[in-house]
Amino acid sequence: MTEPAIVLGANQYGKAEVRVVKVTRDTARHEIDDLNVTSQLRGDFAAAHLAGDNAHVVATDTQKNTIFAFARDGIGSPEAFLLRLADHFTSSFDWVSGGRWEAERFAWDRIVADGSPHDHAFVRSGQVVRTAVVVADGADRHVLGGLHSLTVLKTTESGFEGFPRDRYTTLQETSDRILATDVAARWRYDGVAADAGFDYDAAYESVRLLLLEAFAERYSAALQTTLFDMGSRVLERRPEIAEIRLSMPNKHHFVVDLAPFGLDNPNEVFFAADRPYGLIEAAVTRAGAASPAAAWEGIAGFC
Amino acid sequence: MTEPAIVLGANQYGKAEVRVVKVTRDTARHEIDDLNVTSQLRGDFAAAHLAGDNAHVVATDTQKNTIFAFARDGIGSPEAFLLRLADHFTSSFDWVSGGRWEAERFAWDRIVADGSPHDHAFVRSGQVVRTAVVVADGADRHVLGGLHSLTVLKTTESGFEGFPRDRYTTLQETSDRILATDVAARWRYDGVAADAGFDYDAAYESVRLLLLEAFAERYSAALQTTLFDMGSRVLERRPEIAEIRLSMPNKHHFVVDLAPFGLDNPNEVFFAADRPYGLIEAAVTRAGAASPAAAWEGIAGFC
Amino acid sequence: MTEPAIVLGANQYGKAEVRVVKVTRDTARHEIDDLNVTSQLRGDFAAAHLAGDNAHVVATDTQKNTIFAFARDGIGSPEAFLLRLADHFTSSFDWVSGGRWEAERFAWDRIVADGSPHDHAFVRSGQVVRTAVVVADGADRHVLGGLHSLTVLKTTESGFEGFPRDRYTTLQETSDRILATDVAARWRYDGVAADAGFDYDAAYESVRLLLLEAFAERYSAALQTTLFDMGSRVLERRPEIAEIRLSMPNKHHFVVDLAPFGLDNPNEVFFAADRPYGLIEAAVTRAGAASPAAAWEGIAGFC
Amino acid sequence: MTEPAIVLGANQYGKAEVRVVKVTRDTARHEIDDLNVTSQLRGDFAAAHLAGDNAHVVATDTQKNTIFAFARDGIGSPEAFLLRLADHFTSSFDWVSGGRWEAERFAWDRIVADGSPHDHAFVRSGQVVRTAVVVADGADRHVLGGLHSLTVLKTTESGFEGFPRDRYTTLQETSDRILATDVAARWRYDGVAADAGFDYDAAYESVRLLLLEAFAERYSAALQTTLFDMGSRVLERRPEIAEIRLSMPNKHHFVVDLAPFGLDNPNEVFFAADRPYGLIEAAVTRAGAASPAAAWEGIAGFC
Repeated sequence: MTEPAIVLGANQYGKAEVRVVKVTRDTARHEIDDLNVTSQLRGDFAAAHLAGDNAHVVATDTQKNTIFAFARDGIGSPEAFLLRLADHFTSSFDWVSGGRWEAERFAWDRIVADGSPHDHAFVRSGQVVRTAVVVADGADRHVLGGLHSLTVLKTTESGFEGFPRDRYTTLQETSDRILATDVAARWRYDGVAADAGFDYDAAYESVRLLLLEAFAERYSAALQTTLFDMGSRVLERRPEIAEIRLSMPNKHHFVVDLAPFGLDNPNEVFFAADRPYGLIEAAVTRAGAASPAAAWEGIAGFC
Repeated sequence: MTEPAIVLGANQYGKAEVRVVKVTRDTARHEIDDLNVTSQLRGDFAAAHLAGDNAHVVATDTQKNTIFAFARDGIGSPEAFLLRLADHFTSSFDWVSGGRWEAERFAWDRIVADGSPHDHAFVRSGQVVRTAVVVADGADRHVLGGLHSLTVLKTTESGFEGFPRDRYTTLQETSDRILATDVAARWRYDGVAADAGFDYDAAYESVRLLLLEAFAERYSAALQTTLFDMGSRVLERRPEIAEIRLSMPNKHHFVVDLAPFGLDNPNEVFFAADRPYGLIEAAVTRAGAASPAAAWEGIAGFC
Repeated sequence: MTEPAIVLGANQYGKAEVRVVKVTRDTARHEIDDLNVTSQLRGDFAAAHLAGDNAHVVATDTQKNTIFAFARDGIGSPEAFLLRLADHFTSSFDWVSGGRWEAERFAWDRIVADGSPHDHAFVRSGQVVRTAVVVADGADRHVLGGLHSLTVLKTTESGFEGFPRDRYTTLQETSDRILATDVAARWRYDGVAADAGFDYDAAYESVRLLLLEAFAERYSAALQTTLFDMGSRVLERRPEIAEIRLSMPNKHHFVVDLAPFGLDNPNEVFFAADRPYGLIEAAVTRAGAASPAAAWEGIAGFC
Repeated sequence: MTEPAIVLGANQYGKAEVRVVKVTRDTARHEIDDLNVTSQLRGDFAAAHLAGDNAHVVATDTQKNTIFAFARDGIGSPEAFLLRLADHFTSSFDWVSGGRWEAERFAWDRIVADGSPHDHAFVRSGQVVRTAVVVADGADRHVLGGLHSLTVLKTTESGFEGFPRDRYTTLQETSDRILATDVAARWRYDGVAADAGFDYDAAYESVRLLLLEAFAERYSAALQTTLFDMGSRVLERRPEIAEIRLSMPNKHHFVVDLAPFGLDNPNEVFFAADRPYGLIEAAVTRAGAASPAAAWEGIAGFC
């Protein structure tokens, strides 16, 4: 009996983290688009892996060049830009059956000088990084909006009670604690991907505000509850969004025991810890809706 | 007609990055285990998300405590330690149907003092970080060994030729370039997960050396070829490994044009670039073998 | 003749990066102070270094405790908080002749919910990190305000011409380029350090705005010119500031050559490079004024 | 009476973090030098700051080009390479009176394949980063060797007792704890700087081993004691080194209280904390020796 042959499984490749900045300078009031773009192709690349035959390997350098060249016509929303890239690569090379294109978008505010927003001087707003993903899977297009590094905190209206206790449980119950997290979210747009007219920028801005609002408003019985509040708020208000996935660390703020120094501490002085942290992850979706696995999957399993 | 209800999808939660150090000091010659452990539970946590009912929420603090308590009996291989954690949580709480436990392991070498390796003084070896993952899915156990941050480079015996050229292609062909990458790999052990006697440490060390050797030995026609060489080498030599997934950036080293200074540069002086970089990812597997999706999947889609 | 003895030179020690968060909750409208504090003592610590005698070594743990205890009474401006710490340590231990206390301060904005700024829910503003340093040197107190990670960019009104050319010069002159930098600045307050009534918060906010404005307004003949514009603007408007030091990378944005693709590129599409970068550093000061070395010096020379 | 004029103070500028890799391939057994070089010029640059006149501004791009061009002739020790750069810039431009050149050097080991070290395939050794600094101050040359990111730990033979106790002291005394630190050191060579024949590589390797040995050997009454042991060991054995400065965090490893779980913990299970950490910094020098300030000083005060 022979051993089974060793074969190539799922694979993708491309150019990662192309830092493209597009300045629109049609008028004296310049606009800036600042993106970090990653392009990954999927398709028939077996010969390169198995035989060193590169006839199908669209160079990652070529993918980079294409990103810069496409930016010449303007970037627009990151989702629309990635859709253009997806269509280009899948239509230009018939062995390219799909791929994954991702972008981070960095926001800039105009500097206020002499009392008014400046025409061409900007300061980077570090509050959040917007993200976008387009996955092409044959003729299908999956579009994910997203954001990360949105750090939020509430100083009260958060607790954690009623949890099970076993031999290893020492945590005390509390109905008043700091709740802090860095929100990372991706949401999937449904039925709008092919519509070049859809306003992804407005949808993104709306989702960002809904996430902030839902975080702020209700008492948090656990970070899980707050996560679900945030996700369901988005689905309630944005019918074009089919599902949303959130990954949120519980960034612990511990009340410092000041009693040894003769001081009380009624939840006023906290130590902000780095590690370990809680980590809460969930999808919020619509009943009965399928979630296309292709929209979400990576290859290498480094999640 | 009513809108479909908004519901909870896949979810997991736990404590991330518990930095546990275990010193074994039975004799004067101390041993050290230095791990970064993440515990994530899967199961029935709907009430916490939907109703603020924490009766099922094993506190992430409890998960942390359990990690420290279990370390008291010794850690052993990270895979064996994670299997103990998986069995504990899935057997202690009947609503916990599974989970994902992950560890990084940092290696320490003994300091040489007075000509011999010291009993209790160590220097951290930064060459590579070992990783392990155990996924429990009902009664199933999936065990992934791995490593990341293994930075390798060859100064020759690497090229890239014969790739397709389109309007956006400017890259020149070459049969002599630097090839450099940071290897990240995960491999799945098959049929040994429940066997407490399996020597995961020896297997890891063998895989690390096989990856290095395969990187070094053959001419690289593309990073894809080298990736497949590395993965197939591991599968050829380690029958207990069912599949391996590799994620490898192509860390570009550009030949500097010294002609303007009246100098030649026969592949001797290079500029090591940060971004963008190529990114090559693939699975190498055995023909006809199924790959259990549960072993590899995350929740939030941040790949 | 004997070898000169080996002796202890300059030294300091303390606790670094104490992450203290103070919530002021006297009313329903909470306030938050979020600081990263480092305390370093200078004085007579020779016995600890030379003889293992810790009688003078105020434990770094004690320094940490003191920071938390002092926060109980409120933090106020970081400069005022550090001055309190400096006075405490130098007056409590007679062998402590001075020290250096430093803080980073992270800014939080109120989340807008239901149309108005929320009472106790915040989002971290990532635009800039405020810093403060107090150096005690005997009875002297030196107070430095500062900031870092203020990323600014102008899309035009920047050039670089008229520089010397030698054998190694290939750079082309330009009168229109992107200018981008991360501003890091420290400025020294003069004659106000002991005045508890000085409004450091207002001074900081004013300096931040002056730096932004000066960056925006004038044509930049070189980053050096812009740096001096920024520093002198601050000194012109803020008489209480004796000197300012700035460290500003020139974050290169290269015009991408799109000619191979049949496209022009009139300064519209740029590649934002990571490394190498220019690095411009200078002090701007007042004629005839002395700069106390003690205010600026570190110990270990890792600048 | 008029306000004092606003003037330029100390300043320097240049190109930072030039990542140059030099392959020596005279024989089939290749050698690799992997450096991160920063060049900063000092001298008369007032016109650029004050008047936008760049006639003295040797472009940072030119500085980068020069680094690559000089690498064509081989790099050798980082100290020797920086001395060549210093001599070039100070002799080529008469308004350049000095400067500061710095390098990090990354070490690579040969991959072992087929039982022997490979000719041209390498794996990066992450144990430590070597550093070098050359400061030119007129005709003077100051040469600093150094290293950083050397992480060491001893599992016993470390304590902390006899420290003063005040109102804010809660730390317990101990005679058995983990001691862990990341060593960063810079040492100044004396009287050898101009001697091209001096073997900086051998000196570096010797210092690295002496630091490790001294860390390991003696009981540590405090990290201060260990720091002085390490520094004085270097000065005892290396007469060409005039002084050494060390910056060492005390990376706390806390004994986990396992009593709530019915377990003892005789210094076996530790939690490795991130922040806050102790920070111990000192110079060790020779009695009566002057330390040239120029060798150590930065400009911007970000220590």
